[in-house]
Formats: sequence, structure tokens, C-alpha cells
Amino acid sequence: MAKQKPRTLSGFMELLPARQAQFERMAELLRRSYSLYGFTPLDTPIIEASEVLLAKAGGETEKQIYRFTKGDSDLSLRFDLTVPLAKYVALHYAELSFPFRRFQIGKVYRGERAQRGRFREFYQADIDVIGDGKLDIVNEAEIPAIICQTFTSLGLERFQIRVNNRKVLNGFYAMLGLSDRAGDVMRTVDKLPKIGPEKVRELLTGEDIALTGDQAGEILKFISITGSNHEVLNSLEAYRGRHELFDQGLDELSTVVKYLGAFGVPEEKFAVDLTIARGLDYYTGTVYETFMTSHPEIGSICSGGRYDNLAEYYTDKQLPGVGISIGLTRLFYVLEEQGLLSDQLLTAPADVLILPMTDDLSPAIAFATKLRAAGVRAQLYTEPKKFKQKMAYADRLRVPFAAFLGEDEISQGKVSLKDMATGEQRLMSTGEAAQAVLSALEAGRNAAPIREKEE
Amino acid sequence: MAKQKPRTLSGFMELLPARQAQFERMAELLRRSYSLYGFTPLDTPIIEASEVLLAKAGGETEKQIYRFTKGDSDLSLRFDLTVPLAKYVALHYAELSFPFRRFQIGKVYRGERAQRGRFREFYQADIDVIGDGKLDIVNEAEIPAIICQTFTSLGLERFQIRVNNRKVLNGFYAMLGLSDRAGDVMRTVDKLPKIGPEKVRELLTGEDIALTGDQAGEILKFISITGSNHEVLNSLEAYRGRHELFDQGLDELSTVVKYLGAFGVPEEKFAVDLTIARGLDYYTGTVYETFMTSHPEIGSICSGGRYDNLAEYYTDKQLPGVGISIGLTRLFYVLEEQGLLSDQLLTAPADVLILPMTDDLSPAIAFATKLRAAGVRAQLYTEPKKFKQKMAYADRLRVPFAAFLGEDEISQGKVSLKDMATGEQRLMSTGEAAQAVLSALEAGRNAAPIREKEE
Repeated sequence: MAKQKPRTLSGFMELLPARQAQFERMAELLRRSYSLYGFTPLDTPIIEASEVLLAKAGGETEKQIYRFTKGDSDLSLRFDLTVPLAKYVALHYAELSFPFRRFQIGKVYRGERAQRGRFREFYQADIDVIGDGKLDIVNEAEIPAIICQTFTSLGLERFQIRVNNRKVLNGFYAMLGLSDRAGDVMRTVDKLPKIGPEKVRELLTGEDIALTGDQAGEILKFISITGSNHEVLNSLEAYRGRHELFDQGLDELSTVVKYLGAFGVPEEKFAVDLTIARGLDYYTGTVYETFMTSHPEIGSICSGGRYDNLAEYYTDKQLPGVGISIGLTRLFYVLEEQGLLSDQLLTAPADVLILPMTDDLSPAIAFATKLRAAGVRAQLYTEPKKFKQKMAYADRLRVPFAAFLGEDEISQGKVSLKDMATGEQRLMSTGEAAQAVLSALEAGRNAAPIREKEE
Repeated sequence: MAKQKPRTLSGFMELLPARQAQFERMAELLRRSYSLYGFTPLDTPIIEASEVLLAKAGGETEKQIYRFTKGDSDLSLRFDLTVPLAKYVALHYAELSFPFRRFQIGKVYRGERAQRGRFREFYQADIDVIGDGKLDIVNEAEIPAIICQTFTSLGLERFQIRVNNRKVLNGFYAMLGLSDRAGDVMRTVDKLPKIGPEKVRELLTGEDIALTGDQAGEILKFISITGSNHEVLNSLEAYRGRHELFDQGLDELSTVVKYLGAFGVPEEKFAVDLTIARGLDYYTGTVYETFMTSHPEIGSICSGGRYDNLAEYYTDKQLPGVGISIGLTRLFYVLEEQGLLSDQLLTAPADVLILPMTDDLSPAIAFATKLRAAGVRAQLYTEPKKFKQKMAYADRLRVPFAAFLGEDEISQGKVSLKDMATGEQRLMSTGEAAQAVLSALEAGRNAAPIREKEE
């Protein structure tokens, strides 16, 4: 028979078993972390009617959409989890209670140009809190705590959450009479880490944006405000009273900083950073980015912010919210590239590989059943192979334990349990074996998936 | 602004939060159950190259495919998890160890005619064991144990796994010289529960299939063999020696039955059923169907079997295997329709809703942080609403506990914890509150998602 060459599309991540186990562990920890903060899991279709999904989209995004017809239907694959959330909340408004807190971990699709580290199918892990009409600032203050707890649970230690407030930015630009050019200015300021302050000044005073030297100077002075959170807030106080929106933003930023301690966020994990802007229209209050301090080149690994109108394309209801998103597939790819996936995590498919040595397999099977009832992941290996091949299989799977049941063991009601790492082999009762495996593997099962190297 | 009416496509399941939590619990228990048997989680793309995905497909299946082009690529959405597995195993053959045991829970797509209870996007939950060249019969004997453990962990009590062996069937038809008509005969016999034996006899001896009266009589006698597993096996022994394939199938079936006890499968959960056939070409050994004994009208909720050649469209390697699949979305739909989703399972988004009663929220936030560190799912409610509205929100979310922190509580370093079910309210330390919540909710958190009614 002619064979079809098997292949996986480029831009689509497909992992080998041990890596997949590591990825699953990350997803499990995200679910657990989000749940602790009262977010409920949600799942929405990957396919939506194009008219619904693309109610807002346009330009760059629309070009990337996987869009097609089936029968009479014009369909599209979701390109993020925010638009489906907006649809969900507008559609099920009457059946939901607000604030509505949901998390969703799911695949999204973007037909981007294929290149290394860019994915066309990738997981996003999102949380959002949606209010009905209003949403209290404490929800914005809580987000850094969630980011901090989430990455800490994954095993990441060296990261920093950088926070700004769009009202502070917009209020400041309004003070300078630059509201109409705020977008251009912010895009330019965004380049600061890459091109430095002098080049930024040149661009700001160039013919496109055409600021005066004074205005450019004010901006450069403003964005160079750094220091501890309280130092930055104190410096901002000097601008108070000149514009209402600015004052409101400063109050919000102060509230976010005030509650950090109570939320359990260590000081060094959080910084007010006036250069963080995050796009132009959507965000209206606090904005967040998260950087790995040892790998700033990766860019933000968790971003988001406060918005005023989640579902304006679907409903007249004012639905403000605050949310963050982790690009899980890209993060996993980067962690692997950087060698930051922990080898402490147990990723073998089973805890014990059971090797029966007799024709009647009943005792070995009964042992497997007993192990499983005790919560031990057990695999029976009954293929008719030589002993050496069986052990090679155990090695390749990297199972931590092998168990042998021969005539001797069976007649004594016992089992020989071999620790594959140390090579040590001990005869013990089946109950003892279950306990021995569980206690030996507790650390490996609960290990964090990420492990940063010593610097 | 003109609004786009929000809607979800028909044939796509989108659940409200409490139901979604119940679905997630089912998926979590499936993952746990499959892991106990040494299956490793796998994830493959939802989109594949059409030439790869449709290497085998044809006829009815192909018509249902979501197929489209993007740029130069001819793409299709997967319609099951078996073809992607075949691709995966053929593609990564050199990097896998065999037997390769994987589970996959993922969405698949079929553009079926929309009707109640039929889904175009649905989850399948599959396990497969793939051998390299050969695969021992014990893998087939283990499957009923996995089915039994899985459904039991979900809370289902009244179900039965019905098992047959294709070699027994094919051998039997060969004895009667009917190998060329075995397909037609099996399709007709499949109708037995619906149309009864006399109508089956009519069809078998009718002009399409044209069996002799003797042949039809032999078949009806054969498929009417019932009784305990050992009675059925004994009756089958009477046919031994007449055809090699039959004898081999009978040996396999006997082995499967022999090990049931050691695998922990209760006698009443398992029946050898000679009317189970499961399609024509693909399956070659043991075949499985699973029925809810109180709802036989639902049909099989978990089916599968042994096959000889998983990936013949991609590789010359002979890759035999055995697998089963649960149509999770349809099962969930049916369980809900039948009122079999348990209300004992805690599906609220949080365990405790914290209601601060002071302007400074720090003590309430610190309490939330403490609860979360103890593993309690806590939500802060800080919207400026009247007390009655806050309690109504707690009621609607069905959170089991509300916690109040007023000046009195704060000055004493305590919290008032209210059990929302009983209305009882007690003043206690924050540490006591965490413990009280955890112990009160242990049952609800660990409850099974399915609960059958008393008959």
C-alpha cells in the first residue's frame, strides 16, 4: 500500500510524552492557582460564526484568522479568549452573577508567518473579572497577587510584575495638551528600552509627532521617574491637581501599591513602571506586564489590564473588567529553549513497572490492582521479551520503580521492588511496596515544572 | 453603535459556570483514572494537513470533515483522536517506547446534521496501548478494569461492560462457510435487540443475504448463547476444534474472563455478549461496549477494541493496539438530560466569599491571602453594594461560606464565618476559619459528578 508521509503542520506544537507531562503539570498548577482566587473554569467553542467573532476585528488580526465556510455557514476559529468571553457574557448575561470571575485555558489560532518560536495554534491561559456597570479597584489590586502566586507555584523565582495606570498616562499627556497625539507618543516611548532616551527625543520632536523641545523634555523626565514604589508614587504626587484624570489614576495606582503587602506580594516582585502602556484603546486603568528578570529578552510572559467595555460590540450593557493572559505555548517553548524545565518533576507514565515472572499472571495483576487502589500509577509489562529488554524498556520510560513477581515472591506473598535510580532491590509485602513508592515519589510528583539555574 | 447579536453555533456545547465545573470534574477524574493505569497524556493539533488526516477516510466521514484552505495549505480539523494518534506514532516512532500507552482528552469536529443531542464539536476521551509488531493479550484483559474503575470513580454504579471477540465471530462464520457474507450477517444480527429473532431470521434467509434455513438457525442459536461468563464460555467450547481462528478467539476471551477478578472487576459489571460486533474491518480481537443498565436506550457510553494495524496508511511498521473511547460531550449531555448530575459536588467558584465591613480593606485582604495559602478558594467582594445585595450575590454563586470582617472582628483578630446552608454564624480566628472550611467542604469537593437515583 502506498504510504502517506506523516507530518505535523509547522507552527503547531506537538510534544513528546515526557514534555507533554510537564506541560500538563503547568496547566494543572494554573487551574489550581486561578481557582484559589475564586475564578470558575469556562470553555467556549473553538469555532464561532464569523460575524460574531469578527464583530470588532479588523486589519492585522483579520488577516490572520482561519476563516472558512461549511454548508451555508461562514465560520472562524477563535484568535483569542477575550472575544469569546465578551460573546459569552453578553449572551448569558441574565444567567450570570457579577462580578463574574472566570478562567479559561484553551487553544487559539492565528495564521501568522511561520517562524521559530511563533505558533499558529497555541494555548492562552486567561483570567478576567467582569463587573456589571462598575468594578471596584480592589480587583485591579488583586491581579499582581494572582500573577505572583501563579508563577511562584510553577517554580519561577526571578520575575517582576511591572504596573502602570492608563489614567496616569492619559492625564499626564492631557496636562501637556497632547491628548490627540498620546497614541503616537506612547508608541515612541515604548521604544525607550531599545533605542534609548536621546533617540526617543529625536522621534518626539521629529516632523511626524512634532512636539516642542519642552514637551519632549517633560515626557522624558516623566518616564525617567524610577525608584521604589513609594518613591515613584511620591514623585507623581508633584503632578497632582493639574488634571482630574491623572489624579484619579494616581489614586488607583496608590491603592494597588497599598494593598500589595496584604495580598502577599513581595516588594521585589512588583514595580510601578511608567513606561508600560499596553496598546492604545482597549485598556483604561491599571496595566500589567511580567518579566523574567534573568531573561528580559523574552518580553512579557503575562500581560493585561483594566478595560471599561468588554462587550460593546454585542450589548448596550456597560461591562468593565480586568484581566490577564499567559501565552502558555510560547512560554513553554521559551522555558524549554532556555533549559528552565525542571528535571525534578516526575514525568514517567507510571510510578511502577510490574514484571511478572510466572505463567499465571493473576498475582502480578492483583498487585497492580492493589497499587492503583492506593493511588500508585502502575503498568503491567507482559510482552514476551527477554529480561534485559524489559529492563531497557523500564529505563527508557524512566519509571522510578520496577517490581518483580516470581515464584519465590508469590509463595511468600511478597514482591521485589527495585529503585531504578539507586539499583537497590528489596523484598517486601505488597502493602509496604505501595507505601514505599508513594513516599519516595511525593517530592517528584509535587515538584514545580520550572527550575531556574543558580546564577 | 450597531450591535452584533451574540450567539453560539448550534451543535456546539457551551455550559454555564456550575455545569462547566461539573464537566471539569469529570475530565479531572478521567485523567486521574487513566494515569493510574500508566497512560501518559498526549495533545495533538486540532488542525492537520488534509492529505495526512484523510489518508484513510472516505465516504460518510469525509463529508463531515471541516476542511478549508489557508494560503496554499489544504487543512482539516480532526474528526477523531485515533487518526492523529496513528500519525503521531508513525511520525515519532523512533522516539517512543513500545508498548506505548497514551490517553488524550480533546475536541473533535464533525459537521453532522444538527439535531438535539448531536454535537459538531465534542470531546472524546481515548486511551490506547500500541505495540510494536506484537501486543500481549493481557492488554486486552486490562481494558474492562479501566472502564470499570473510570465509571466507578465518576459515580456511576449501574453499568455493564459487554465484551466479545472478533476472532470468535469470524471463526464461527468461517465454520459455516460464510466468511464472504460475515459483514452482512453481522450488520443484520446487530439489529436483534430492536427487531427480534424472527425478523432477523427473515432477513438472513431473504434474497439479499440468502442463507439457508440451517445456517440462519445456527446463527440464531449461536447468538442466543447467554448466561454467566463461564456458562457462555462453556457453550462456546462445544464449537472448539472446528476452526483455528475461532479457537484462538475463544482462548483470548477465556483469558480476558480469567483475569477479571485479579483486575478487580466485579462479576456483575462484565458480560461476554456474542451480539457485540463493532463495525467490520478495523477491529480484530476483543471488542467492548459499555451500557448504563438503567438507561440502555442511550446506547454504548464507552466502546473500543483490539486492532492489528494502527498506522498502516503512514508506515510499514505493524502497530497493533487496543483502545477505548468515551464520547464525553454526549455523555455529559445525556447525564444532564436524565438528571444524573450530582448536586452533592461543590461547583461554586469559591469556598468563601469575604465581605469586608471597613474602609481599610487590608485585614480582609490579609485574611483572603491566609485562606488561599491554606488551600481555601477565597473571593473578596468589595463592590459598594448594600448588605442585602452582597448576600444575594453569595446565594446566587452558591458559595458555601461567607466571612464578615467588621471593626469588632478586626480588633479581636477574628472573623465571623457564616455557613450559608444552615445560616449558622460563628466568631473564630482566621486559622480556625480556614480549617473549618476545609473540613466542612472535603466531601463536596471530592464528590463524584454523577449520582444515580434510587430505583
